[in-house]
Amino acid sequence: MANEPVTAVLLLSCPDQKGLVAFVSDFLYQNQGNIIHADQHTDQEEGVFLQRVEWELDGFAIARDEIEDAFRPIAERFGMTWSLSFSDSTPRIAVFVSKLPHCLYDLLARWKMGEFRAEVPLVVSNHDDLGSIAGDFGVDFRRYEVTPGSKAESEQEIVTLLEERQVDIVVLARYMQVVGEGFVSRFLGRMINIHHSFLPAFAGARPYHQAHERGVKVIGATAHYVTPELDQGPIIAQDVAQTSHRDSVPDLVRKGRDLEKVVLARALDLHLRQRIVVYGNKTVVFD
Amino acid sequence: MANEPVTAVLLLSCPDQKGLVAFVSDFLYQNQGNIIHADQHTDQEEGVFLQRVEWELDGFAIARDEIEDAFRPIAERFGMTWSLSFSDSTPRIAVFVSKLPHCLYDLLARWKMGEFRAEVPLVVSNHDDLGSIAGDFGVDFRRYEVTPGSKAESEQEIVTLLEERQVDIVVLARYMQVVGEGFVSRFLGRMINIHHSFLPAFAGARPYHQAHERGVKVIGATAHYVTPELDQGPIIAQDVAQTSHRDSVPDLVRKGRDLEKVVLARALDLHLRQRIVVYGNKTVVFD
Amino acid sequence: MANEPVTAVLLLSCPDQKGLVAFVSDFLYQNQGNIIHADQHTDQEEGVFLQRVEWELDGFAIARDEIEDAFRPIAERFGMTWSLSFSDSTPRIAVFVSKLPHCLYDLLARWKMGEFRAEVPLVVSNHDDLGSIAGDFGVDFRRYEVTPGSKAESEQEIVTLLEERQVDIVVLARYMQVVGEGFVSRFLGRMINIHHSFLPAFAGARPYHQAHERGVKVIGATAHYVTPELDQGPIIAQDVAQTSHRDSVPDLVRKGRDLEKVVLARALDLHLRQRIVVYGNKTVVFD
Amino acid sequence: MANEPVTAVLLLSCPDQKGLVAFVSDFLYQNQGNIIHADQHTDQEEGVFLQRVEWELDGFAIARDEIEDAFRPIAERFGMTWSLSFSDSTPRIAVFVSKLPHCLYDLLARWKMGEFRAEVPLVVSNHDDLGSIAGDFGVDFRRYEVTPGSKAESEQEIVTLLEERQVDIVVLARYMQVVGEGFVSRFLGRMINIHHSFLPAFAGARPYHQAHERGVKVIGATAHYVTPELDQGPIIAQDVAQTSHRDSVPDLVRKGRDLEKVVLARALDLHLRQRIVVYGNKTVVFD
Repeated sequence: MANEPVTAVLLLSCPDQKGLVAFVSDFLYQNQGNIIHADQHTDQEEGVFLQRVEWELDGFAIARDEIEDAFRPIAERFGMTWSLSFSDSTPRIAVFVSKLPHCLYDLLARWKMGEFRAEVPLVVSNHDDLGSIAGDFGVDFRRYEVTPGSKAESEQEIVTLLEERQVDIVVLARYMQVVGEGFVSRFLGRMINIHHSFLPAFAGARPYHQAHERGVKVIGATAHYVTPELDQGPIIAQDVAQTSHRDSVPDLVRKGRDLEKVVLARALDLHLRQRIVVYGNKTVVFD
Repeated sequence: MANEPVTAVLLLSCPDQKGLVAFVSDFLYQNQGNIIHADQHTDQEEGVFLQRVEWELDGFAIARDEIEDAFRPIAERFGMTWSLSFSDSTPRIAVFVSKLPHCLYDLLARWKMGEFRAEVPLVVSNHDDLGSIAGDFGVDFRRYEVTPGSKAESEQEIVTLLEERQVDIVVLARYMQVVGEGFVSRFLGRMINIHHSFLPAFAGARPYHQAHERGVKVIGATAHYVTPELDQGPIIAQDVAQTSHRDSVPDLVRKGRDLEKVVLARALDLHLRQRIVVYGNKTVVFD
Repeated sequence: MANEPVTAVLLLSCPDQKGLVAFVSDFLYQNQGNIIHADQHTDQEEGVFLQRVEWELDGFAIARDEIEDAFRPIAERFGMTWSLSFSDSTPRIAVFVSKLPHCLYDLLARWKMGEFRAEVPLVVSNHDDLGSIAGDFGVDFRRYEVTPGSKAESEQEIVTLLEERQVDIVVLARYMQVVGEGFVSRFLGRMINIHHSFLPAFAGARPYHQAHERGVKVIGATAHYVTPELDQGPIIAQDVAQTSHRDSVPDLVRKGRDLEKVVLARALDLHLRQRIVVYGNKTVVFD
Repeated sequence: MANEPVTAVLLLSCPDQKGLVAFVSDFLYQNQGNIIHADQHTDQEEGVFLQRVEWELDGFAIARDEIEDAFRPIAERFGMTWSLSFSDSTPRIAVFVSKLPHCLYDLLARWKMGEFRAEVPLVVSNHDDLGSIAGDFGVDFRRYEVTPGSKAESEQEIVTLLEERQVDIVVLARYMQVVGEGFVSRFLGRMINIHHSFLPAFAGARPYHQAHERGVKVIGATAHYVTPELDQGPIIAQDVAQTSHRDSVPDLVRKGRDLEKVVLARALDLHLRQRIVVYGNKTVVFD
């Protein structure tokens, strides 16, 4: 990654109108922007336009810290919701886990291999079990008591910790706890969960048992942004695997682990590469 | 198909016990049965054993119409639920449709090409639209008025018609009607429906609209036996396709059509080739 | 389809340069173009830019038959390869078959159901077998003798026939003949073939036998544009299915049929909706 | 795993004959064998019968170390190729790598999590790069110089090392070296490789570049037993992922990594659970 040119990424959404693409592309053209990637989508039913543009900073006529101001008049003209980011930023991730290690191992290994342009300063858990894995990868581990009585207080402490450690993104990597609304709101659009079923099927607890009970021929996993409504947030990525009567519940769990870790990592990667725009309760993924 | 040797197929299920396979295989061996296919499954959680054995009639020491009597002592010893069938039987299928033609076209074309060893003497509908397609394939078409007021009476007439026409299997090929309990009971284990979602997600009406609304990244189709509980019967086959934000509802419908027709045909094919055992609310598919 | 607004579709490719999107989008904006769909792709390795833009004719400031002239200066400035088409055109398709009916049935049924905005005036074959299917759908059927000795002459007659019947697109729907270079050249970019394997695996004859022999766990089908090099043309669509040791060659053939017909139809649909740009030996599919 | 009952697994293949299943099942029944899993397959074309039977040792009438002798008469009667193993054995695995860490990380993490009933005493490489990963997981790391001149000698040393360390299974986890025939022969049926394409497509080097060059819409990965013919050994598992023109070579590599590690782990898991019988150049996988 070190040798890749630094790029700017503009993500935007607004009511669909004539001239949107013309104004944005003219802005880049007039300022000598060398476009690396551009994609857009119009939701015809909702009348919403969404766009992602990425261009090289090198050679661009506007200084990095002046781009926002320069673009603002266009954004205001069209009523855009928008964000600007740069490919050399390194957001900080906290991974939340309980007792199951497969997603944690996978995320930490990918991070060590350089798959994610990010820092992972912190693993948080409601159990001690996975502390040594975090330690093996040189990541701080913090355990919180999360019981019905202590949950609200613990979550407040956790939020304080995340702020101290300047955490930008929370990844729930089989964290078997419902996260409280205050915590969710604090990280809205920045908290990703992996659910071990193809939502909306088998929402709630024990989806592999539900799947086995129902006798389905396909299982899945779903990565989504966390919102206050449990298992209802915008879906980022899903994948499925075929199953048969030969699969017992432990077999489903085994197959499901591979889905979960791959789908969660794909979602995190898309988020880190600024490929996702959320609108309403959906995502547009500019892959 | 004409040149294939005629075979007998034994499908059975019973409480798991020692000696099951030994007794069944010894029965075939002692009578010079040439086994073409044998498969079995033990559901460890439920303690249920299920088996499918297929062997050539040619050279078998017991005459075709005496096999049932010969096998009965073994079946009774182990408390088996069982059925015996022969590969040269040609069950009679009635296809139920409403206005959407893709599954009907697909089933009739497969039938004409010889994919199904079956007769298709009848298409039944609550609308006139697809009558000409049935006609092009030389199949009788019957339309029934199915309104809230007339439904019970119409279904009774339909059942009478199916009995007159000696129909063995009912295929609901996007028949947009909930079938009454009396009709269902009459064809329990012999009525197959295609649902246009990966059940249990998006049960009920308008699943593609539900899928689009929820922003899923995967859609599916489910073929299942019909039981009195709507969309709850034993699942035979499911398949899925990837989708993205680029797919509008009409795009999902278009992709879904291909899933529906392929999954429904696969389920019917498995049923006709005696590959399915139902137990509890699940299927074992000996493919 | 009848009620959908008529749209214009611009497909273009050219060396990647700054200002491309700006000029094209400004052209549409200045002329009050209401964009329905826009997508683009930059092949960074090859330095090629490709774009698809679709906009409504209603309300556009330039008359339908003057758009080409109006756009030409931009196309020439950037050295574009480009085409303009309109959504209400109905290209004419000839389907070529041999003895296998599944793709023919599927294409004709889809056409009758209105899935394709096209005419299908003609089925051509080197055998008589499928003539009655064409007849059932009201399509002319022409048989040509294609033997090593007669092939060149027959293909010349076929091309003449296709010209007389004003055929725009040739679909090889399991036409088990290698098409001569003259014929191919005449329909370059307008002749689509379905190959019954996931190319480049198992190119050539009898791919299911090859797949069974090799013991693969996945089979596939590939739709591609036909070029003079056998099985080497630009790939439009591919799909795969899982297999196991339980699948005999006839089982692979059966599973493969469903892949073939779905993949071929998908490719034809993408072609008809002007979703494909060919460059080099590849396709960009703006789905 | 600790609490699971110890089982015996019989894997066998022989010419298809009447009485095979009867004799094997009677042997188990007469000795009070409680069958946990039984599956069989007849390759009709080749006339080969293959079977896997697994039963509990607890309660079985024959002592563990006398089962082989007791079964031998049946095996000889039918001319079986067969093996007997026990579920509490812990084979020893050596993982071979070069510079790419994703498969190594994945295998070691799965092993630490208890997914594999095996020991992993050794990682071998022709480069130093991944030594620290082996170290983090407490596994010995040995580097060998493998150059055209030194290869034969190095491989002899490696074989000696593997024998000293009592290695049963060799896993080539993106080991970018062709393994010599002597080494292969020593571990025939016990050496598993992951190839980064859906073989037989893109055999040889740089398959993702080949795939990108060819413009395929699907990529894959293949785990197979290593035989002297490069990339030609019996296929154990394959999986695929959809791609599009949007995927550059690095994108294919990224998607491919997830296929590779999952497919390789699945193959190793099947091997360890004694689920595979090789015959000819194919596998039967009793999953």
